[in-house]
Amino acid sequence: MVLGLAGEGLGEHEIIRLIQRRLTVMPDMPVPFGDDVSAVSLGSDEVAVLKTDMLVAKTDVPAGMSLFAAARKAVVMNVSDFAAKGVLPSTVLVALGLPRGFGAGDVVQIADGLNAGAREYGAYVVGGDTGEASDLVISISLFGTAKQSVLMLRSGAKAGDVVAVTGLFGKSAAGLRLLLGNCEASAAVRDVLVDAVFNPKARLREGLALRGYGYVSSSIDSSDGLAWSLHELARMSNVGFLIDRVPIASEAEEFALRNGLDALELALYGGEEYELVLTVKPEKWSEAKAVVEVVGGCLIPIGKATYEKQVILEMDGEKRVIEARGWEHFKSQI
Amino acid sequence: MVLGLAGEGLGEHEIIRLIQRRLTVMPDMPVPFGDDVSAVSLGSDEVAVLKTDMLVAKTDVPAGMSLFAAARKAVVMNVSDFAAKGVLPSTVLVALGLPRGFGAGDVVQIADGLNAGAREYGAYVVGGDTGEASDLVISISLFGTAKQSVLMLRSGAKAGDVVAVTGLFGKSAAGLRLLLGNCEASAAVRDVLVDAVFNPKARLREGLALRGYGYVSSSIDSSDGLAWSLHELARMSNVGFLIDRVPIASEAEEFALRNGLDALELALYGGEEYELVLTVKPEKWSEAKAVVEVVGGCLIPIGKATYEKQVILEMDGEKRVIEARGWEHFKSQI
Repeated sequence: MVLGLAGEGLGEHEIIRLIQRRLTVMPDMPVPFGDDVSAVSLGSDEVAVLKTDMLVAKTDVPAGMSLFAAARKAVVMNVSDFAAKGVLPSTVLVALGLPRGFGAGDVVQIADGLNAGAREYGAYVVGGDTGEASDLVISISLFGTAKQSVLMLRSGAKAGDVVAVTGLFGKSAAGLRLLLGNCEASAAVRDVLVDAVFNPKARLREGLALRGYGYVSSSIDSSDGLAWSLHELARMSNVGFLIDRVPIASEAEEFALRNGLDALELALYGGEEYELVLTVKPEKWSEAKAVVEVVGGCLIPIGKATYEKQVILEMDGEKRVIEARGWEHFKSQI
Repeated sequence: MVLGLAGEGLGEHEIIRLIQRRLTVMPDMPVPFGDDVSAVSLGSDEVAVLKTDMLVAKTDVPAGMSLFAAARKAVVMNVSDFAAKGVLPSTVLVALGLPRGFGAGDVVQIADGLNAGAREYGAYVVGGDTGEASDLVISISLFGTAKQSVLMLRSGAKAGDVVAVTGLFGKSAAGLRLLLGNCEASAAVRDVLVDAVFNPKARLREGLALRGYGYVSSSIDSSDGLAWSLHELARMSNVGFLIDRVPIASEAEEFALRNGLDALELALYGGEEYELVLTVKPEKWSEAKAVVEVVGGCLIPIGKATYEKQVILEMDGEKRVIEARGWEHFKSQI
């Protein structure tokens, strides 16, 4: 999540910057602070890739989501960061905070969800620890190895590169609104939208297919929202973007129409979607698109990187700024 | 913590067993489930060593403990597990759950505590993530590399091995009781006991000094209490122990006397102490003791491993069973 956290109006990214400024910097970090993953050199071109992020029931698990789905999602949201870097996760560790009153059936559901999330992406749960917490907390750590030279970082986009995404946007934001109970949808549309929230997929196949060939100049996942992801890539690559297309899922369009909402708003600022947002060298575009299609995915061009350091949406001949707004957590919308 | 968790009377170790039974087992795990750390082969004899455990304010941070100390402790308790295996931690990642109302000053204190905990043991904080939680949650992940052949596992003790510890027991348990406000001590004793709670040390120097020479046949840290650690080593090594000495800190003795408590009880079942509990091959005892003393530590013999699979305390000619009771969390003692 990006906003609405802590006192003094501190947002998540401000908190992370505050923390980073106090830390002793490790010499020769293979991946800079602020990218989706961390890394440690293992000698020659090999790096250990590490990621940790926690799911907290109060803010990350909407009503109706099973413990199985919550535990699986805790793994998937971490795998998504590996996917964006083109790294295969090897192992999952879990630190589990359980509220009093959880029984064996609950624990088994969580274990099955963790195992399912890991196995779906080729990884194994190999350890962890557990203790008591006020609220269910599932903190996941991922480990994998990779060649440092082929990691797809957030920095590296050049003016002229094609901006692309791996899927359609807006479903999770719509699904969350449905789960909060203040919107409507047909049964069929509801199923699709709610499934996007309960059963998210990480684009690991796409990330792995793209790595190693120099097609991709920068990459991030869209978990904080498409708009936020574009701003992060722009900032860390020192470029801007001219976006001419925002691919919106038809179910999100239909949902927006029925509920008097703006589908574009849902797609740009919704978040909790796990597509990859990346830039591709223009001369490599066809090849990049082809390798993603070979693994059953798609690569949708949505604009170009520009020298001008703004993130602009140009549609129907009209230009407007895409704001650096991110995913505002569903709890703060109640 | 060991006991008092979750509904249906499930303890932490029961929960971990429930989870393990549901997981797909990774082929050729270099370290079995249930040891202090997890590991992944990196080829030849090299392994990546991984650990994650979380500190939850409600149950792990007594009144009067600063955020700096809490964050430092979150790192130290993970380093202690690396110490028990003889592994140098290289990097720390943190997943931070912050309650609403935390300000910049709080975040800076946490960052400084994380950095201090890492640097004290040669490691660097290289990344992490943050979000909102009901209660402060600091989930730490450690990474390091090691030679698989020299990892000091929980299994491996043989009858006749010397059982040893790296320090005195009882201070943390006494300190926690003082912080809960229902016991007394002189100012000087109070300072020592409370410092043991607020400023724990991991025995990394000792663990690193002992690795690689085949002195140690099994090893664990004492974070769940000396009694519990002995039972774990016994169970995983398929031996028993005859303990003839429990080294108790003089301040814990004095505290127990003044408050009508049993010092031995505090030392055996107290927990939240980060000594190493290990078994040493008898023919290597002098060498093992010497290398630990060279790095400024001490190795105190407390008994012998036995064929008989019980954990027995023999003092003043009297034998009694050391129970497989662990650290009962201070919150459950109020």
